[in-house]
Amino acid sequence: MGKSTNQKLVVGIDIGGTKVLAGVVNGEGKVLGTAKRATKPENGVEKVVDRISKTVFDAVEDAKLQMADIVAVCAGAPGPLDPDRGIIWNAPNLGGWENVPLAELLQQRLRVPVFIENDVNLGTLGEYALGAGQGARDVVGIFVGTGIGGGLILDGKLRQGWRKAAAEVGHMVVLADGPVCGCGNRGCVEALASRTAIERDIWAGINAGRESLIPRIMKRDNRDRLTSGVLAEAYNNGDPLVAEVISRAQFYLGILTASVVNFVDPEMVIFGGGVVEALGGGFLEPIRQVAYQYFINKRGARDVKIVQAKLGDQAALLGAAVFAQQKLA
Amino acid sequence: MGKSTNQKLVVGIDIGGTKVLAGVVNGEGKVLGTAKRATKPENGVEKVVDRISKTVFDAVEDAKLQMADIVAVCAGAPGPLDPDRGIIWNAPNLGGWENVPLAELLQQRLRVPVFIENDVNLGTLGEYALGAGQGARDVVGIFVGTGIGGGLILDGKLRQGWRKAAAEVGHMVVLADGPVCGCGNRGCVEALASRTAIERDIWAGINAGRESLIPRIMKRDNRDRLTSGVLAEAYNNGDPLVAEVISRAQFYLGILTASVVNFVDPEMVIFGGGVVEALGGGFLEPIRQVAYQYFINKRGARDVKIVQAKLGDQAALLGAAVFAQQKLA
Repeated sequence: MGKSTNQKLVVGIDIGGTKVLAGVVNGEGKVLGTAKRATKPENGVEKVVDRISKTVFDAVEDAKLQMADIVAVCAGAPGPLDPDRGIIWNAPNLGGWENVPLAELLQQRLRVPVFIENDVNLGTLGEYALGAGQGARDVVGIFVGTGIGGGLILDGKLRQGWRKAAAEVGHMVVLADGPVCGCGNRGCVEALASRTAIERDIWAGINAGRESLIPRIMKRDNRDRLTSGVLAEAYNNGDPLVAEVISRAQFYLGILTASVVNFVDPEMVIFGGGVVEALGGGFLEPIRQVAYQYFINKRGARDVKIVQAKLGDQAALLGAAVFAQQKLA
Repeated sequence: MGKSTNQKLVVGIDIGGTKVLAGVVNGEGKVLGTAKRATKPENGVEKVVDRISKTVFDAVEDAKLQMADIVAVCAGAPGPLDPDRGIIWNAPNLGGWENVPLAELLQQRLRVPVFIENDVNLGTLGEYALGAGQGARDVVGIFVGTGIGGGLILDGKLRQGWRKAAAEVGHMVVLADGPVCGCGNRGCVEALASRTAIERDIWAGINAGRESLIPRIMKRDNRDRLTSGVLAEAYNNGDPLVAEVISRAQFYLGILTASVVNFVDPEMVIFGGGVVEALGGGFLEPIRQVAYQYFINKRGARDVKIVQAKLGDQAALLGAAVFAQQKLA
């Protein structure tokens, strides 16, 4: 197969702390081939970039294509970064990267234009263009996992922000002087409703003598962390401590949803991330109830859609592909 | 003087519950003439619209012009409204208006195109184009008075929102389960830092036996309400109860500022409104300190400007003029 710019074949990459995903995506958003590799951040920047490049080559091979067929690549990465200059300012998840010119390093190896953007921004863009947000004009993405990240699409355009720091919904304060957050401040929604916060509250309950299925499930599965899967199993089996802690997290996520809606008035809010995926669609209903109650403007309130993400693990990869295609358009 | 569309002469109107302001504004944002009239909402819609029209004619006369010189009019009004169809959905401040086709009613009397928009949105647009926000790419306006209203300019464009309900910053929740707000929910920043909230907390202190200058000042001036002016006098004279209550309001306004910055990452946040005007520039410094501390992204944090509004009473009127000029452009 020859070079076919018309098809806008691009590779989207999702660089996480544990694994790298890459996918060849065509102009219709179809994934033609994928590949995956451990990130191994402990080996340093150059080695990680080599592994990312190899993952791209593997995905291209999986699609039965050649690099000459690919017109651009975009990588989603954690941490604050400069998408215009292609530099990762800071990424603790990748072993403490500081000012790494990732776009340039990848471009030297891949020999096609390389763009970078924040992984959660791209996840939101992916959902907007190819997932739960198709057809919506504005989307706020809220991803609940170890932390809480977000993305913001307004009038069909990704809002990057004046300092390229937009959509940090996890650090909007909903309970002033509340629990200490990983960021050092207090009362951020991340300190109240992330998996880390849920885990903290469940252990506090267990340590205070409350009954819970959690210790048994973890022992049975030989796990030392309270994963989203463990959480979901206990929740689905009616664990009262887990139900109580989850219910409180839902309340704060409902408050957050209302605050972002009262501020930017979007058409849609999409919830994704490990906790949401593990607990399923039912997790959203209490969030919706609180949110609608806290909307200041009730006109058309129920038309503001609060929905679950659809793309799972592939959201950032697909968003990266969409971003690359937009950049070339 | 003949019709001169080149000069883009427009009339901006600010319709409040007590008074109507109108101003003739040229393409450079210069006010050529103004007029003012009591609103008298108790007389009903038609009478109020008549009074607004007369105020426009007076402003045109004050500018030594004729209506034939005016190419468009824009009115800022309170309450949720539909700027596209020119309808006020609901305005308790104007005596309970419901679905009033204000643009059409004014157009019949003024015989030029008439636009309407939310008054606080226009105040923010005025500050952006002609006041404290000149040169900034994005502006969040936060106006602290009886309530707390807002406006949002992103990439130079007023964000109206999907339901025309954006920028209700006063109803972002910063203290979940906090004090009851006028909207019926709890913990909105309006319930913590508006003049109404400040007044409530000061009276609670006085009723509990705390010393304060407030009762004496109000008695001396024969006032039955704790106005922003009374508040400022007590504050400037070192009233410890007032200082404590204001300091708490500043903390919550700092938290709000950080939340909006963490979410949309604007270049500038502008504070205006009666409380801010009465207490002066010094009122902002504690807000800035809290805000910067709560920014999740510290890179360039101090470059995000947190400043006082400059246009005072004329912000909405000037914003209305800018809006009309943008609509004609």
